[in-house]
Amino acid sequence: MNARASVVTDALDGMLAASGGRLVRLDAYPDIRVVLRADWDRSRVALISGGGAGHEPAHAGFVGEGLLTAAVSGEVFTSPTVDAVLSAIIAVTGEAGCLLIVKNYTGDRLNFGLAAEKARALGLKIEVVIVGDDISIDNAPQPRGIAGTLLVHKLAGAAAAAGLPLAAVKARADDAATHVRSLGLSLTSCAMPGVEREERIAPNEVELGLGIHGERGSRVIEFAEADHLVAQVAAPLLERLSPADRIVLVVNSLGGTPPIEMSIVMAAVARTELAAHVEMVIGPAEMMTSLDMRGFSLTALVLDEERRAGLLAPSESAAWLSAVRFVQPHTISAPELHDAPSISPSDDPAVRRLLAAATALLKQTGPELDALDAKVGDGDAGSTFAKIADAIAAQVDRLPLGDQAALMTALGHILSRIGGGSSGVLLAIFFMAAGAGLKQDPSFPSALRAGLKRMQDYGGARRGDRTMIDALEPAIDELVAGGGLREAARAARQGADKTRSMIKARAGRSSYVPSASLSGVPDPGAEAVARVLERLSAVSG
Amino acid sequence: MNARASVVTDALDGMLAASGGRLVRLDAYPDIRVVLRADWDRSRVALISGGGAGHEPAHAGFVGEGLLTAAVSGEVFTSPTVDAVLSAIIAVTGEAGCLLIVKNYTGDRLNFGLAAEKARALGLKIEVVIVGDDISIDNAPQPRGIAGTLLVHKLAGAAAAAGLPLAAVKARADDAATHVRSLGLSLTSCAMPGVEREERIAPNEVELGLGIHGERGSRVIEFAEADHLVAQVAAPLLERLSPADRIVLVVNSLGGTPPIEMSIVMAAVARTELAAHVEMVIGPAEMMTSLDMRGFSLTALVLDEERRAGLLAPSESAAWLSAVRFVQPHTISAPELHDAPSISPSDDPAVRRLLAAATALLKQTGPELDALDAKVGDGDAGSTFAKIADAIAAQVDRLPLGDQAALMTALGHILSRIGGGSSGVLLAIFFMAAGAGLKQDPSFPSALRAGLKRMQDYGGARRGDRTMIDALEPAIDELVAGGGLREAARAARQGADKTRSMIKARAGRSSYVPSASLSGVPDPGAEAVARVLERLSAVSG
Repeated sequence: MNARASVVTDALDGMLAASGGRLVRLDAYPDIRVVLRADWDRSRVALISGGGAGHEPAHAGFVGEGLLTAAVSGEVFTSPTVDAVLSAIIAVTGEAGCLLIVKNYTGDRLNFGLAAEKARALGLKIEVVIVGDDISIDNAPQPRGIAGTLLVHKLAGAAAAAGLPLAAVKARADDAATHVRSLGLSLTSCAMPGVEREERIAPNEVELGLGIHGERGSRVIEFAEADHLVAQVAAPLLERLSPADRIVLVVNSLGGTPPIEMSIVMAAVARTELAAHVEMVIGPAEMMTSLDMRGFSLTALVLDEERRAGLLAPSESAAWLSAVRFVQPHTISAPELHDAPSISPSDDPAVRRLLAAATALLKQTGPELDALDAKVGDGDAGSTFAKIADAIAAQVDRLPLGDQAALMTALGHILSRIGGGSSGVLLAIFFMAAGAGLKQDPSFPSALRAGLKRMQDYGGARRGDRTMIDALEPAIDELVAGGGLREAARAARQGADKTRSMIKARAGRSSYVPSASLSGVPDPGAEAVARVLERLSAVSG
Repeated sequence: MNARASVVTDALDGMLAASGGRLVRLDAYPDIRVVLRADWDRSRVALISGGGAGHEPAHAGFVGEGLLTAAVSGEVFTSPTVDAVLSAIIAVTGEAGCLLIVKNYTGDRLNFGLAAEKARALGLKIEVVIVGDDISIDNAPQPRGIAGTLLVHKLAGAAAAAGLPLAAVKARADDAATHVRSLGLSLTSCAMPGVEREERIAPNEVELGLGIHGERGSRVIEFAEADHLVAQVAAPLLERLSPADRIVLVVNSLGGTPPIEMSIVMAAVARTELAAHVEMVIGPAEMMTSLDMRGFSLTALVLDEERRAGLLAPSESAAWLSAVRFVQPHTISAPELHDAPSISPSDDPAVRRLLAAATALLKQTGPELDALDAKVGDGDAGSTFAKIADAIAAQVDRLPLGDQAALMTALGHILSRIGGGSSGVLLAIFFMAAGAGLKQDPSFPSALRAGLKRMQDYGGARRGDRTMIDALEPAIDELVAGGGLREAARAARQGADKTRSMIKARAGRSSYVPSASLSGVPDPGAEAVARVLERLSAVSG
């Protein structure tokens, strides 16, 4: 996104701006990029880590009480200079001394190392711990430092926050560095700012055991389902455990993996044999990244009382995530859903006659409404109404015809099972809301208006949008104003006819149709409503 | 990563596994995907949100005390079914009722809406709030619901956690939904699981104002630096503010943006005019994503006392990030670095003679050592040593020749400024550590051994790795054992000669050179050490 020389300083300033004032930086950009705690008083052992940029939120995101005191950043994938590290050391080190936590890469070792020696020459108490947690290469003389470094930050940070002396803080860091193990896997390489991405990894391949600087993995394996890939990362970690070992597991995104995939990785971890050893989990999250690399790493540290306490000690930083107890996914019983609340059938000859008239009309006009809809929509409006009418007619003897509220609700349930597209769902909502309305207020017109309102709430259409609302709303208004079926039918007809001149649909399927095609054609839904009401008026008259 | 039908259920199970037991799900996979609080007792108003998958960590990541009670997930970018929503409602709704928080998309409105009506028909108290925070299309009749929905979760969640009745919780949700505004920008489209990515957005283009379902943006703009792009997202949010408005700003990643870029976005936000209105910031982080889309959205909500209190109310979930005070990046003064601690020159004729001999030898053998290095390395070892010798010779009158400890430290400082590659840094470390050692223990051989140890700690090479260690270590061992310069020189020579038969370099530049090229050639560093010691022995003898 940003090919400028200021990529790294911008990223650090962004972290400062989002830190709530907890972080500040040294005023020596661009060569010296040091982020430190705003509230640091040098009263305890200082902890410094860092390295090349491109691993954000590491390391500035882990600066805070109980974690790092300062972070030093180089350019992307390039170690910070000796002067940058030395500046950080001088800025934060008091009588209690300072521990440098260094990922095992030659540049970092040398630059942090020389800075440490220079600081010692200035009379400061400095210790260094080098972390090489990558287990991808058996018996590597210099295993790389990757995400496991974060656990060293945390355990050393807890010791420093507790006020332990430098030697004890270093001992905790050494203990963590000695025991922590990580392995990564990636589906893609990463893109350096301003550099074309090297498409090294084929689409059907995956690299296992890679570092965090875009370097090659130790092994190329075939792409497979997440379960299979995760198992291959988990297996070497498992091999190094004793049966009784309990671990904390860090599930780290390499930067370009979307959250849905990281959660799939987590689910796959839960299905590995390694899961039986996992007591606590940190993540999944972006913690030690490799720019936008699509992949993940797993880090395991065997727990003992001291390490467990250090992990769970309070801390305050932007990026550290509390370790949580690992659990296998639990379920609870889903409620049983019934097609409809049980209803007692009842009869009312007048209602039966109206229902029969309406359903017969809809079945009869189906083809005609389909033809209208073919001009302004997808040509199935009439069929859908006919299907709804069929379903109602077929169940008429099981309906509570003598109980208006129950009848409206029952019609809503029938409609909700039809699958009649958006119109069917909206009519279901209309009838169910009208039924609910009738239970509270016996006025039938008011109940219809309540149903209409709900339909509009969910459907979003208003009068003038060229939908069935254009016929339904004026009809209901007539009923609410005291009119009968005849007046309602007349209002619906006028409303439906008006849709012929609405040449811009704002809702429903017709909103995708050009104005010229709409002109002169009534909306099929409004037309259906008008015709049903006209028929009902004729029958009841 | 996972083209299986189980993408969504796996992702949800991963979130459960990382929830520390706080989350459970209904046992009705695959059609019904409902995640809910394990500790929910129905004593207060329940909050349910959800929608299509692909927006992780939304919505299951926002289930917890003070936020959602349950989340319902559909397939990727597809609304959950009515039955799924209804199952969630029945599972969590007690006497206090339930509020559904729905992002404004037709499918979600209809399915959540019908489920609400069915739940009401069952006698449950249900309210619905629809969030349409996207401002990308002026006067859109149905603005989409995007990341602003999260603020509605939080403010309604705070009200529900406080025990407010359903009407009041709905009022808070409505208030937030009415005032929250968002705008997104993307550099790439997103890839649906199992579907080829549609490469719709050209590499030099950016889409402004897109939703979170891979749909097109409202406007295509040219790719530019982050500052320019962010300004175009911030401007429409700013336009809608009054001068005195103070806002909370959500900086949301769309899923495929690496943390370093999100921090750059945050830095760019801090440089917009909008920044003057920002009181609190949430993020940058992945909160409401669109699979692996590379982009971000900004969400603004004007603060008043009630909204501020709701935002800052405690909550407990995997993905909600506390709002922090927004600050412009602050700096503190970097320490001044001095080239070297001030030293008082002093003289010692014997030391002066040895130094002169060593530097003369190194200048003289430069070409020969370069020739050796050309066979096994990059051909500059001799030049580097000669450069170091030059620098020392030039400064000999300013050196503390009469104070061994200070002299070692001073030599270290000279070497640290030469830029002599890894060897130069390692020799600087050697001399500085030896100087520091002499301050603690007056034994010169012990100090050299301390220097050697440090050099090995940082450099990582051991004897036999074909480096200068192979000459240096045996020589120092001789001195420590009580030998003189003569014995030390002999040991160094033997060590250097042994490197001729070391055909596998394990450290340094030669580790990249094939064995056949190494055979018979001594390591140039070891050879230099041996020659210097031989010369010193000759001079002092």
